[in-house]
Amino acid sequence: LDYQHVQVPFEITLWIMLASLAKIGFHLYNKLPSVVPESCLLIFVGLIMGGIIYGLNDRSPPVMDSDIFFLYLLPPIVLDAGYFMPSRPFFENIGTILLYAVVGTVWNVFGIGFSLYGICQVRAFRLQDVSLLHNLLFGSLIAAVDPVAVLAVFEEIHVNEKLHILVFGESLLNDAVTVVLYKLFRSFCEMPTIKSVDVFAGVGKFFVVGLGGVLVGLSFGLTAAFTTRFTKDIRVIEPLFVFLYSYLSYLTAEMFHLSGIVAIIACAMGMKRYVEANISLKSHTTVKYFMKMWSSVSDTLIFIFLGVSTIGENHEWNWPYICFTVIFCLVWRALGVLVLTFFVNRFHVNTITSKDQFIIAYGGLRGAICFSLVFLLPDFHRKKLFIAATTVVILFTVFVQGMTIRPLVDLLAVKRKRESAPTVGEQIHIRFLDHLLAGIEDISGHWGQYYWKDKLEYFNSKYLQKILLREYDQPKSSIVLLYEKLERKHAIELAQAGQLGHGPAHPSLLNSDRTVMTDQKLEDTQNPDVLDNMQEILARNLYRIRRTGPAYNRHTLPGESEPGEHAEEILILRH
Amino acid sequence: LDYQHVQVPFEITLWIMLASLAKIGFHLYNKLPSVVPESCLLIFVGLIMGGIIYGLNDRSPPVMDSDIFFLYLLPPIVLDAGYFMPSRPFFENIGTILLYAVVGTVWNVFGIGFSLYGICQVRAFRLQDVSLLHNLLFGSLIAAVDPVAVLAVFEEIHVNEKLHILVFGESLLNDAVTVVLYKLFRSFCEMPTIKSVDVFAGVGKFFVVGLGGVLVGLSFGLTAAFTTRFTKDIRVIEPLFVFLYSYLSYLTAEMFHLSGIVAIIACAMGMKRYVEANISLKSHTTVKYFMKMWSSVSDTLIFIFLGVSTIGENHEWNWPYICFTVIFCLVWRALGVLVLTFFVNRFHVNTITSKDQFIIAYGGLRGAICFSLVFLLPDFHRKKLFIAATTVVILFTVFVQGMTIRPLVDLLAVKRKRESAPTVGEQIHIRFLDHLLAGIEDISGHWGQYYWKDKLEYFNSKYLQKILLREYDQPKSSIVLLYEKLERKHAIELAQAGQLGHGPAHPSLLNSDRTVMTDQKLEDTQNPDVLDNMQEILARNLYRIRRTGPAYNRHTLPGESEPGEHAEEILILRH
Repeated sequence: LDYQHVQVPFEITLWIMLASLAKIGFHLYNKLPSVVPESCLLIFVGLIMGGIIYGLNDRSPPVMDSDIFFLYLLPPIVLDAGYFMPSRPFFENIGTILLYAVVGTVWNVFGIGFSLYGICQVRAFRLQDVSLLHNLLFGSLIAAVDPVAVLAVFEEIHVNEKLHILVFGESLLNDAVTVVLYKLFRSFCEMPTIKSVDVFAGVGKFFVVGLGGVLVGLSFGLTAAFTTRFTKDIRVIEPLFVFLYSYLSYLTAEMFHLSGIVAIIACAMGMKRYVEANISLKSHTTVKYFMKMWSSVSDTLIFIFLGVSTIGENHEWNWPYICFTVIFCLVWRALGVLVLTFFVNRFHVNTITSKDQFIIAYGGLRGAICFSLVFLLPDFHRKKLFIAATTVVILFTVFVQGMTIRPLVDLLAVKRKRESAPTVGEQIHIRFLDHLLAGIEDISGHWGQYYWKDKLEYFNSKYLQKILLREYDQPKSSIVLLYEKLERKHAIELAQAGQLGHGPAHPSLLNSDRTVMTDQKLEDTQNPDVLDNMQEILARNLYRIRRTGPAYNRHTLPGESEPGEHAEEILILRH
Repeated sequence: LDYQHVQVPFEITLWIMLASLAKIGFHLYNKLPSVVPESCLLIFVGLIMGGIIYGLNDRSPPVMDSDIFFLYLLPPIVLDAGYFMPSRPFFENIGTILLYAVVGTVWNVFGIGFSLYGICQVRAFRLQDVSLLHNLLFGSLIAAVDPVAVLAVFEEIHVNEKLHILVFGESLLNDAVTVVLYKLFRSFCEMPTIKSVDVFAGVGKFFVVGLGGVLVGLSFGLTAAFTTRFTKDIRVIEPLFVFLYSYLSYLTAEMFHLSGIVAIIACAMGMKRYVEANISLKSHTTVKYFMKMWSSVSDTLIFIFLGVSTIGENHEWNWPYICFTVIFCLVWRALGVLVLTFFVNRFHVNTITSKDQFIIAYGGLRGAICFSLVFLLPDFHRKKLFIAATTVVILFTVFVQGMTIRPLVDLLAVKRKRESAPTVGEQIHIRFLDHLLAGIEDISGHWGQYYWKDKLEYFNSKYLQKILLREYDQPKSSIVLLYEKLERKHAIELAQAGQLGHGPAHPSLLNSDRTVMTDQKLEDTQNPDVLDNMQEILARNLYRIRRTGPAYNRHTLPGESEPGEHAEEILILRH
């Protein structure tokens, strides 16, 4: 027996296997996942495993390594989130999201930090040795809402798209703020004196870290798109580039101390459109499927490890500090959401209702990011107290808030996600309104959202597409393609049935399938130019009207329903 | 800048990226890959990179780590090979393959070992310090034909299926022999005296290593099939199980000093049939695609590393030893093939022609396995000579033999692979003959190939399928499924065109699509039982008549052509 030799890959494979089997196990009992979120069950499995390891070895089970978490487990989840991000609601609400992510997080960090410092001044609690700086450092790591935890809960409760994107977008983008504040306070802890210059440098870093991440991500994303122009002869490695470039963008950003999460999201959103146009359909299925699979496994592993790491002797218990941490996390978040939403609602027609505000505040779950950050703290005598407080906050938010949010959504009758996809008519109207508003903004000289969107679209079709797409001259929308496909299928079926004596239902199909038609019907289409023209008009104006993606869900792939099924349904309804 | 932190994943990603970009680069110039095999180009890229590293650092570039090779690079390639192995030709020629793999490899090991020992006795060559045991050890690592190198060359020359499976099967299965002999001689080198017991124990190990590998592989494969019974509600992680269980089988086999390659092949071949029936179509596409992608990248990395590792100061140059190694490798292989084929041809009707024999002998390429084994040798004063000889043999076989084999195949007019897939008529006849021969063998009391196949099939449908398949009661062949699909499509199209007034071409479709039919046509199918019966007969007898897979090719996926396209072609031909 030579276990040493294969230990590393063997144990990794076994952990992944355990995670996958746990997932299967939960789904075998259909009732369980509908009551308890999967994340809770997984933490529970982790707690049991940790208990077993602790019982057998009589020492603390290994804690989740922060490096493993940040380098290997987090990127797949964020990539998946970025790639399947519904871009329209995201960009429509980008201002609100940024406000929550930047101002909201800063508010929470200082709120929690200062009020915990206040608690430390109470002599009875015996916490006077915890300095303000340490409290702020703790605040900076405990304040950040965790994308993994948010996703795990919100993908199961199906709230309306705007609410979903507000919470989820905030959880992703606050990474830049968390990184800056955490590193700032940590370096302050090690400095003898803090000058005001350092504080201003910290404020400047916000922009560097955030915008730098976006830049790194976009440049890798566009390079990825450019690379897939040349993969026509070697389709099998196409999916690889999507993963390689995204991961490189994350690692590069981390290397330069920028926000890796922001980088990978920018990369995924930047490349998606061009890569999808360049790669084959099967490659695309593989990319989507593998992304879902990978993020699903990462997510499972994270929650199991979170459970395992909870067990052990890493904790220092101090009731007041821990209880007040939980309370302050809740209170400051609720206050922050209320105040910020007040300002947001003053500038928007489509306001955020008070029910939505409650869900936003209540959905601020903490997770593995806090946990990894607290273990990365430099050693000092109260580190174990911080670890204990962080663990309790995570378990409280995931278990109590995560399990009660679904009943609360039901109780409050929060607006749910539309079940049906928008009709073609609706989509055309949305698109028409976009153009109209862009025109109005242009005329009135107001450089708003629509104006910039229009300009970006112009820049995209004028320059970017020419460089990044392999077949630039055929920008056909999915509707046009589906239409053509159905027509072709139709013709073939008619021909097979020997019923082509009847005129074809849609004359334009003769254009593309002339070979399969009998001569008789060629007379109908003396005007292929007209048809070409029509198709071009359709293609140009409908370009990129797709089903606006349903809200993010880790367990299903968008577009699972085949066009064929759709046709079937229509047919059944018609009869 | 914090490079240390991200170094490991960053460098791995960069290497994979380099490999992928190199692959794209070669395929951009269409003429290049048709003259020079990709493996040669990749080694060449590696040589250049190694030269650059050597020039910049002024020390030898890092050699390929044997652990990395055996634990991470080799398994994907072997898994891919096993999963896409055409099982019919493999099992039809299993006897010949085993003869080549076991007896042929032993023959080569001892032939090369003893004759090199003879060369060492020539005083002028100054090699008298290389003992017989060291020569045999060297023989054991240099004798084994390398599956990676064989695949890389043979997938481009498209020889006939039998020839392909003979060379490829041998290269895979000789791993068990190589492992045993290599470890045996290595342990002998360290022993003071060798008893005859040790030699007999070595012979016994052959069976343990080989059959143990098969057992480990099969048990993991069947467990994988069993696991996929329960993944209906969580489709996204289905592909994972295929990879996890295969990898576990490999690692487990390696852990117990069994043949990992044999284990992973047995696992892949064992699970394939059941897993494919259990998982969804999209999962299956992902499995196939990812396997191809992974093996393609592994293969690229191996050849690049082979090139990089060649550069440096690891070599001791001794002209006679190196030249005679190359000559003996060629001569002993040619002799071995001639002698073994002589015996094989005496017992077979379908003989191996002398052209085929030449290609089998000439296709015995050496590759990265030899290279990794030679670096795993214990340190002794002539290790660098062995490294040099191994490198030369690999480069010689890959460059000279690899580049000339295609012209030789053309020149000799070796029988090529059938381009077209066998027709349904042919398939039915093959199947019919199988049953007939099984019957004849049963009556005549001869327990031959067909008898065992029939028994296995019986056992499979009686027990295994019930345990391993989720929907056992619907064993439908792909032909029946395609037929049903086309029928359904047809009906929908007719309905959409409003032409359902005509009777449907195939009454049986009313059975499955009754909802979409108008009442008028229900009269045609008063006998759904009869139709069910017919379908069942079809399903039972045609079960598993699929297009027998085309020979292995890393760059394409089998079944790329859609049934729809096929229908289109037929239609075009008809007109």
